[in-house]
Amino acid sequence: MKKTIFIIGALYIFCACPYILSAQKFDRSVKTIENFEGSIPNPEQDQEVSKKLSELEKKTGKKPNIVWLIVDDMGYGDPGCYGGGAAIGAATPNMDRFAAEGLKLTSCYSQQTCTSTRSAIRTGRLPVRTGLIRPILAGDILTQNPWDTETSIATLLGKAGYYTLLTGKWHIGEAVGMRPHDVGYDEFMGYYPAQKEISQGVDPRRYPDLVLNPERMADFEGIRPDDHLQHGFKGGKTEKVSQVKSIEDMGRADQVLTDFTISRIQELAQSDQPFFIDHNFMKVHADNHDNPDYPGLSAAKYAYKNAVAEVDMHIGNIVKALDEAGVLENTFIFITSDNGPQMDSWPDGGYTPFRGAKGTTFEGGVRIPGIAYWKGMITPGRQSDDIFDLMDLFGTNLRLAGISTDLLPKNNYYDFIDQSSFLFLEDGKTNREAVYFWWGKELMAIRMKEYKQHIKVIIPQDTHMWIDYSTVQDVGLAPWMFNLYIDPKEEMPVGHRRSAWLATLGAKLKTHAATFKKYPPKQIGL
Amino acid sequence: MKKTIFIIGALYIFCACPYILSAQKFDRSVKTIENFEGSIPNPEQDQEVSKKLSELEKKTGKKPNIVWLIVDDMGYGDPGCYGGGAAIGAATPNMDRFAAEGLKLTSCYSQQTCTSTRSAIRTGRLPVRTGLIRPILAGDILTQNPWDTETSIATLLGKAGYYTLLTGKWHIGEAVGMRPHDVGYDEFMGYYPAQKEISQGVDPRRYPDLVLNPERMADFEGIRPDDHLQHGFKGGKTEKVSQVKSIEDMGRADQVLTDFTISRIQELAQSDQPFFIDHNFMKVHADNHDNPDYPGLSAAKYAYKNAVAEVDMHIGNIVKALDEAGVLENTFIFITSDNGPQMDSWPDGGYTPFRGAKGTTFEGGVRIPGIAYWKGMITPGRQSDDIFDLMDLFGTNLRLAGISTDLLPKNNYYDFIDQSSFLFLEDGKTNREAVYFWWGKELMAIRMKEYKQHIKVIIPQDTHMWIDYSTVQDVGLAPWMFNLYIDPKEEMPVGHRRSAWLATLGAKLKTHAATFKKYPPKQIGL
Repeated sequence: MKKTIFIIGALYIFCACPYILSAQKFDRSVKTIENFEGSIPNPEQDQEVSKKLSELEKKTGKKPNIVWLIVDDMGYGDPGCYGGGAAIGAATPNMDRFAAEGLKLTSCYSQQTCTSTRSAIRTGRLPVRTGLIRPILAGDILTQNPWDTETSIATLLGKAGYYTLLTGKWHIGEAVGMRPHDVGYDEFMGYYPAQKEISQGVDPRRYPDLVLNPERMADFEGIRPDDHLQHGFKGGKTEKVSQVKSIEDMGRADQVLTDFTISRIQELAQSDQPFFIDHNFMKVHADNHDNPDYPGLSAAKYAYKNAVAEVDMHIGNIVKALDEAGVLENTFIFITSDNGPQMDSWPDGGYTPFRGAKGTTFEGGVRIPGIAYWKGMITPGRQSDDIFDLMDLFGTNLRLAGISTDLLPKNNYYDFIDQSSFLFLEDGKTNREAVYFWWGKELMAIRMKEYKQHIKVIIPQDTHMWIDYSTVQDVGLAPWMFNLYIDPKEEMPVGHRRSAWLATLGAKLKTHAATFKKYPPKQIGL
Repeated sequence: MKKTIFIIGALYIFCACPYILSAQKFDRSVKTIENFEGSIPNPEQDQEVSKKLSELEKKTGKKPNIVWLIVDDMGYGDPGCYGGGAAIGAATPNMDRFAAEGLKLTSCYSQQTCTSTRSAIRTGRLPVRTGLIRPILAGDILTQNPWDTETSIATLLGKAGYYTLLTGKWHIGEAVGMRPHDVGYDEFMGYYPAQKEISQGVDPRRYPDLVLNPERMADFEGIRPDDHLQHGFKGGKTEKVSQVKSIEDMGRADQVLTDFTISRIQELAQSDQPFFIDHNFMKVHADNHDNPDYPGLSAAKYAYKNAVAEVDMHIGNIVKALDEAGVLENTFIFITSDNGPQMDSWPDGGYTPFRGAKGTTFEGGVRIPGIAYWKGMITPGRQSDDIFDLMDLFGTNLRLAGISTDLLPKNNYYDFIDQSSFLFLEDGKTNREAVYFWWGKELMAIRMKEYKQHIKVIIPQDTHMWIDYSTVQDVGLAPWMFNLYIDPKEEMPVGHRRSAWLATLGAKLKTHAATFKKYPPKQIGL
C-alpha cells in the first residue's frame, strides 16, 4: 500500500501542481460523510426519486423486492443487446428484452475477478479494504475472519425486514463464520466454489492426469474444494443436498438453482415481508458442461455458448416467475456479470469487444453488462453511458429499503454510491464521479467521464493468456491515458499531451489513495 | 492471377482430397447460370417473396423505389445498434430506430476499400473482374475504360423505367465516359473524390507543408483531385456547382447533398416513375470537418464523432422526407458503409470491435453495418447473422424492378445473389453460401457459415497502421481458420486441426478461382 501511495505521490508531483484548479472543476463530487466516497450533488434528482419511491410504497404497502441475477464470467459482448447474441452464435432474447424494456448501462464496472466483485457488492467496499481480494483457498491461513468487521448488505436488509436468500455461487469463504448464512443471509442454497474447481475432479477428458490416476485422486481428496450443493439457514444447520459426481451433475446445477429460486419466489410473494434474492449462476464460468436437458442449446454448439443460451433462458424464467407471482412491479432486478470473460480457458470463454479479459483492469476485464429492469419504475428503452460501479448496488439497495447509513461502522471506509436517482428517473444522471481499478493490493487505474488512466497494466505474454501467463507492469514516463470515446479498445494512449487531464485524474487517484491512510486496508493473510 | 490459382491448387492438394464428399454436403449452393455465382436453392421462400412483391405492386401500381444510404468509412461498431453510438460518444438514434424497425444484418460484407465496394455494388461483380480495384488517380494511364464492358445497376433500372440519381461521393472515375451520368445514372450531384483528397488543399492545420507553401500549392494545381460539386445529366452537360475553398465548405458538403436528395424525393414522389436514389455521404471519411451549422454535434466532440452524429441526422431527415412524400411503404431503404473504419487517420477514424480495419480482409475491414428498412415489408425487430455481400444489393434490385438477368452480358461473370427472399420475408434465410475476400488482385480469404479462412493476411507494422504501414503476407503451413462465433476477433486460429473444414473452404476457394479461367479478369492498367 505504501508503495502505491508513493507512486501516486510521484505522479502528482510530476504533473499535477499547476492544474489544481482545473482538477477542482473537473471533479464535481462532494464528500458529505468522512468515511464515504463522495458523490455528485444533485438535490433535485434526489428529491424526485424519493417522491417516486414513496409513491410506489404507498401503492404497494411495502418496500420493494430486490433481485440480483449475477452471471459468472460473462463478457460485455456476450448478450445480443451488447453486440453479441445471435451474431456470435448464442442468442439472448431474454436479456435483450429486459435491456430494451429497462435501462442498459454501457459503462458498468466490476472488479477484475470473481471474489473481488462478489465481496465488494456485498460489503460496499473495495476488496483491498476488506482483504477479500481473491478466493480463500484450502491452503490459506487467515489471520482473521474478514467478515467479522464487515456489515453485509444482507444483514442490513434483514434489519429492515427483508427475507434474504443467496442462491448459487458464493466464493467468499466456506469456513464456518464466512458462509452466506453466517454473514447475514437468512438462507443459502448453492455452491462455495466455481465450476472449474468442482469439475476438475469429475472430467476425465479435460483433466486426465488427475481423474484417470487413482493415486492423484487420493492426493486430491484432502485439498479438493467442496463439491456439494449446500443448503443452510441463518443460525441453523447446513445440509449437503447433493454432490457433483459427473459433468452431467455440473451441467444441471443452474437448472436446480433456478428451480429453487423460482419456488422461493412463489412462496415469498405470498408473504408481507419484502425479499432480497441474490441469485448467482454457476455458468458461464469455465468449465461449462451442457445441461443434459438442453444439449447444444445455442447455434454455435460450443459448451460456453450453450451456457450463455441456458443462463438467458433461466433469467427469462425467473423474471416470468416474478411476473406470475404478481410482484414484478414491486421488484428491482439487476442483471450483470462478476467480471469480463475468462479468455485463458478459451474456447470455454466469452467475448468482449474491448482490450483485455478477466484478471486485468483493461476494459475487457472490468466493463460488464448491466441491465436494470423494473416494470413501471424504469422507463423502457433507456440506455446510459454514465459510469456505474457494481458496488453502487449496495448503496441503491440501502435507499430502496430505507436503511440509514448510520448503521454502518464509522471506522470502515465505504466506496459505494447510492444510484437510485440515476437508475430510476427517466433522465437520471450518474451520481458517481470516478471508478477506481485495483488488482489485488495494487492500485492500477481510474476512469472519470470518458477518460481512463492506467498507472500499472497487465500484459499477456501470449494471446488470451491474461491470467495464467501475464505480468503486472508499471507504465513508462507517463500514465497510459485513453479517451474511451475515440479509443474504446485502449490502443492509442493520448498520454502526456493531455497533461491537464493526466494531472486531474492523478489528483483524484491521490485523494483515493489517501483514504487508505486514515482507514488502513485490512490484512487477513491473503 | 495465375499465382493465386496456383496457391489454391496447392492448398487443395495438400488437404482437400479425402474430403470431397463433406465439401459437397457443406456447400449447398447450386449454379443455375454458368456465368453467375450459385445460390442456395429455396424455391418455397422464392415463391413466397414473389407473391409478397406482386401483392405490393398491385396495391401501389408501380415498382418499389430503392434508396441506398452509403456512409463512407463508417465502422461496424459506430452505430448504437451495433454496440457503439452513445457508448462511444456519438449517439445514432436514427440508425438505431431503422434497425429496430427493420432488419439488422450482423454479417454484412463490403470490399476492404472504397472504390472496390463502390464498383462492386454497381456492377454486381468483384473488383478484380472489372479492374476497378482502387480509385483511378491523376497519374494513372488506363488501357481501356473499364465501364465500356460493364452494365451498371443504374442502366438496368433505367431500362425498367426507373429514374436514377446518384448523390454524393462517386470515386469510380472522373474522366468523360466514367462519370455516374455516363454509366447509366440519369443524374449526378456530387463529388468525384473522398474528403481527404479535397481538404488536403484547404486545411493549413493538417497539411501545412502544402497549404502554407505557395510553391508547393502551385505544383499541386496540376495534380489535385477535382474539388467541385458537380451536377450532370445523362447525355447532357456537367456543371460545376461550387468549389470547396475552405474546411467549412467541406464540412457543409453533406448538408448540401442531403438537401438535394430531399428536394428530389419531393419531386420524384409526385411522378409515376419509380426511383433509385443512390445517396453517398462524404462523411465519415477522413478528413472530417464539422458542419458549421452543427458544430460539436456529438458528446465526444471529435470531428469524426460529430460526423457520425451528423450523418445519422441526415439519414433521419431523408427517411422523414420519404415518409412525408407518402412513399415510405413503397421504398426499400438500405443503410450501410463502404468498408471498415480507416484507423490510419485516427482519431479521425471509427470503431470496429473486430480485428483489422479498412484496407484489410480481417473482419474489421470488411464487416460493416447493414440495415434493411422497408415499412410494411420488412418485419420490425428482425436481426440476422446470415451472410450478405453488398454486391447482393445488385441482385436484389434486379428482382425488385423485375429485370431479367438475360440483359446481362454472357461473357461477364457475375458475383451477386438475389437476396429478396432473405431480406423481405419474416423468416427469410440467406441465399448466399460464401463470401470471397480480395485485396486488389490477391485472393485473400473466404467465409462460409461461421468459418473464415485466410490464405493471405495483412499485418500492420504499428497500431492502427493498416493501410500506410502494413504488409501482405502468406500464411504458414496451414491457412488461418477462425470460428467467428467463438472467436469474433480472429485471434486464435483453429487451423489444421479442423482439416475437413479447411479442405471444404479450400475447395470452395478453388471453385471460385476457377471462374477466372473462363472469365479472365479485366486488365485496365491499374
